[in-house]
Amino acid sequence: MSYDFLLKDLNNKLTQKSIGTDKGLAKIGDGVVNLTYSIAKSIVLTRNSKNNNSIRTGLKVSKTILANALKEADMKSFAKNRSDAHDLADTVEALVAYVWLIKKMTIEDIINFLVSSLNENLIVRSEEIKNATIAFRKLLNEIKKFLPEN
Amino acid sequence: MSYDFLLKDLNNKLTQKSIGTDKGLAKIGDGVVNLTYSIAKSIVLTRNSKNNNSIRTGLKVSKTILANALKEADMKSFAKNRSDAHDLADTVEALVAYVWLIKKMTIEDIINFLVSSLNENLIVRSEEIKNATIAFRKLLNEIKKFLPEN
Repeated sequence: MSYDFLLKDLNNKLTQKSIGTDKGLAKIGDGVVNLTYSIAKSIVLTRNSKNNNSIRTGLKVSKTILANALKEADMKSFAKNRSDAHDLADTVEALVAYVWLIKKMTIEDIINFLVSSLNENLIVRSEEIKNATIAFRKLLNEIKKFLPEN
Repeated sequence: MSYDFLLKDLNNKLTQKSIGTDKGLAKIGDGVVNLTYSIAKSIVLTRNSKNNNSIRTGLKVSKTILANALKEADMKSFAKNRSDAHDLADTVEALVAYVWLIKKMTIEDIINFLVSSLNENLIVRSEEIKNATIAFRKLLNEIKKFLPEN
């Protein structure tokens, strides 16, 4: 099923800000971001497990990680002016949701992309934050090519 | 990518309860359930919109809805003994995650399945609860065929 009809109003006037500041997309993207990161983290932890244990985890990606990833990807132009960290994180979530809904990346694509950037220490929290920020920055750079130029 | 290696310990001794009481699966399934229901609800609301507006929403499915769906699907044998509503809802989430991770249903399949059962009133909260419970009961009945018989 195409989900384009869910985006009709946006597609009528597609700009960086119309996508990046959409509250409904941010809510949907919150689910996409947390689900894909949870699986990516489960995969990396399982691969790196010394005892060869399967590790399954589900968690919320912090707003700080997403906000920093957007800044480091140089994509603050997608967010509203004078955004705080919460707004910037919402923008990341909206962009991820948009690219998923227009079927440029599947859930599995996003998971694979995160895994390929994440193959590092996720046990120490400070290291995880650093690695997750890099992974989302790279994901945003990948996503950028499917988004309007202004 | 196959996610079977994330399920290695479970697959070694696969029972209704080993899947249905797994805490990691429940966490992952929480994301799958909320994301798929959010899109399904967005689709139904958009289709039924009088002004032909696109409606995008993201939300958490209540534990009560999921717990009742499990009971009505006659699948309490997948949950631990003396489960409360929270435990029963976790079991639904674990089962959905399992079927998704073994690739018997994609995210899109689950969305389509929920949409096909949901085409009713989602505006009035009491009606939504009733309709969502039916939709998840039907989803569980669909999922059952991919699960162990005891």
